Amino acid sequence: MSAPMIDVARAARRAQRALGSASGAARSAVLARLAHLLEAREASILAANLRDLDDAEAGGVDAPLVKRLALSPEKLATLREGVEQLAALPDPVGAQLLRRELDEGLELTQVKSPLGVLLVIFESRPDAVIQIGALALRAGDAVLLKGGAEATHSNRALVTCLRDALAGEGLDPEAVQGIEGREAVAALLELDGLIDLVIPRGSGELVRHIQGATRIPVLGHAEGVCHLVLDAAADPAMALELAVDGKCDYPAACNATETLLVHRGFLPHLHAVGEALRAAGVTLRADPEARTALGDAEAATDADWGAEYGDLILAVKVVEDLGAAIEHVHTYGSGHTDAIVTEDAAAAARFLREVDSASVFHNASTRFADGYRYGLGAEVGISTGRIHARGPVGVEGLLTTRWLLRGHGQTARDYGPGKRSFTHRDLE
Amino acid sequence: MSAPMIDVARAARRAQRALGSASGAARSAVLARLAHLLEAREASILAANLRDLDDAEAGGVDAPLVKRLALSPEKLATLREGVEQLAALPDPVGAQLLRRELDEGLELTQVKSPLGVLLVIFESRPDAVIQIGALALRAGDAVLLKGGAEATHSNRALVTCLRDALAGEGLDPEAVQGIEGREAVAALLELDGLIDLVIPRGSGELVRHIQGATRIPVLGHAEGVCHLVLDAAADPAMALELAVDGKCDYPAACNATETLLVHRGFLPHLHAVGEALRAAGVTLRADPEARTALGDAEAATDADWGAEYGDLILAVKVVEDLGAAIEHVHTYGSGHTDAIVTEDAAAAARFLREVDSASVFHNASTRFADGYRYGLGAEVGISTGRIHARGPVGVEGLLTTRWLLRGHGQTARDYGPGKRSFTHRDLE
Repeated sequence: MSAPMIDVARAARRAQRALGSASGAARSAVLARLAHLLEAREASILAANLRDLDDAEAGGVDAPLVKRLALSPEKLATLREGVEQLAALPDPVGAQLLRRELDEGLELTQVKSPLGVLLVIFESRPDAVIQIGALALRAGDAVLLKGGAEATHSNRALVTCLRDALAGEGLDPEAVQGIEGREAVAALLELDGLIDLVIPRGSGELVRHIQGATRIPVLGHAEGVCHLVLDAAADPAMALELAVDGKCDYPAACNATETLLVHRGFLPHLHAVGEALRAAGVTLRADPEARTALGDAEAATDADWGAEYGDLILAVKVVEDLGAAIEHVHTYGSGHTDAIVTEDAAAAARFLREVDSASVFHNASTRFADGYRYGLGAEVGISTGRIHARGPVGVEGLLTTRWLLRGHGQTARDYGPGKRSFTHRDLE
Repeated sequence: MSAPMIDVARAARRAQRALGSASGAARSAVLARLAHLLEAREASILAANLRDLDDAEAGGVDAPLVKRLALSPEKLATLREGVEQLAALPDPVGAQLLRRELDEGLELTQVKSPLGVLLVIFESRPDAVIQIGALALRAGDAVLLKGGAEATHSNRALVTCLRDALAGEGLDPEAVQGIEGREAVAALLELDGLIDLVIPRGSGELVRHIQGATRIPVLGHAEGVCHLVLDAAADPAMALELAVDGKCDYPAACNATETLLVHRGFLPHLHAVGEALRAAGVTLRADPEARTALGDAEAATDADWGAEYGDLILAVKVVEDLGAAIEHVHTYGSGHTDAIVTEDAAAAARFLREVDSASVFHNASTRFADGYRYGLGAEVGISTGRIHARGPVGVEGLLTTRWLLRGHGQTARDYGPGKRSFTHRDLE
């Protein structure tokens, strides 16, 4: 990437305008071609990945990172399937959100439109190139992809597939560009006239750093401090299952349960929940009252409330009532995903109404907060911000809207007191 | 405002949670009470406004600013009417955007929710206190209102009406707070955990300054450089009317037309358009070809393309074809509002499809880009940003979404290859 970043961004903008105003069928054809290329080039993609894996091993990279870095025929098949699903989706661009007659012969519509040029910064998993690239193409967006240095060869091979898929359908390949190096990212973050959205996928620290370094809007999740509330009226067996699943199914995920809030009325059943968690290898850190009930738990300190362990550790706290549980969630949570276990319909309704988080669940594991599970097809990430897109972000989060007005020569000065008035009649 | 800003923001957050989880009927009652208070306190509001007007005159403030500052019984009646309309609106909070079965007995909904705590920075018009405050209450949001120093007494009187309306319905008045002083704003811009959105209403300079000074998302319009394209197939009489209305109806507005792009095929009719504009007092600044056709116009320089005059000045440029017009709009426009005049359906369709602006019009004045005219009830501003809300922003722009999942104890590990699979069936 030796081109000045302003040229990179300008080329992306130009290519995006053509991609965004092409037909939905053209964008579907690009995706179908991409799926085909992923199959046809499997050997060379895996060879590129092997170079990255060799470099990582030589560099003494951690085993979990190597695992995330590795591609396989199975992973490529899953990626291809995802791309084929996106190719088959109805085109979201141009879909009407609203249609309103302002006056006779003056009709307003609000339509979905490509967001524009995205800058996506992600870490070791090269799969993200295809997942994000394909979502961007479906939305008619251009995307600048900055992956981790450890996946350089894999990322290049996959970016080339995306670009060749565009070129093969007669579209400008500059709509997808790989970016390498921190300096390049720093230069791009200055270009708030050319880049419309930055999506950092990584630590909360990365997200906050980027938010402080740019005027471009940033879509990212800060952290996932998810709570599971065991209400007085919780079914004890269900409470146990959901606590174990929320913590143990994939402890490193941002939707893993980090804190158990136990209604005092549930205390008689807490011991069994603790036993099951310990049997699954979980270390418990509890407040004094919960420790007594659990029998075997470390003492929690204030730092445990609000901690994102990402590991087999769980904080446990007793709360007086549902109000105290909600207050705790609002004080220490990150607004990602919070769940309640209860058979009390009124308690469930109150929790769902009052908890101000992206995802709020009743009698389900916090682990369900995920674009694939929500049926979004794929996700670019999970947003804990409150604007634009919240929770798992699929193709809808990569779109904006435009207002189209079709008239017959109406002027603004025709309307007003004593003149014409608006009908404001919603159509359809 | 002597309280530390962190206490101000915390009190707003706490009050917002109560306001947001109150019933829609309760929020309607607050709005109805507000309308009543505006009527009952008319004399004291006007007296407060008179103090501001006296101070402004003593301080030698410009006449246009004094005009914007002035309230009157008529202006208060209009404000009251707007508040009553909002009170009668169906409650947007909790409205479903999507309802999907993920599996039997596992149902996902996406619902509209209050955005949270807003910081709104606006200039001299005290009317904005009520317009923005009422929209925020309808959405269940708390709002910190920083108005212009020249409207201090008026703003205080109006903020008190909003707070008393809340208290009168048993809700916490801290959901609406007036903010005074630049230092207070600077301190609030640091509080990205407590404030969810900043809405600066003012110059593009103000907006850019705030975007650079905070991690909080900013919703604001940079500027309004609106184009009117006179196509070869434009109806000459309509072209003339729309050019005059777009420029002259209210030249200081951000949706006023600033540049006329003239298809070479329209040149025979340009002289008449120029005559009408000059008759309305407009100074024309044109490229050489347009000057020849107009007969009497100043020579445009490069600085005229992309200028937001806000005055009775209009730039005029001849373009080779529709593609060149669209290219000019994308190069020099601000993505606010752009319009085409043409009887050619294909040209209109292309313009509406390709022009990447918040509002894109066919055969209508750029002046229609406005929340009231669009039937949004009221507007907090016009966004030229592409995320969250674009174009005129009404109550929908002050809402976010939450995902609610209702299950019967489902765990994530129940699902996967060889286990249960998701149905992902959209309901309703």
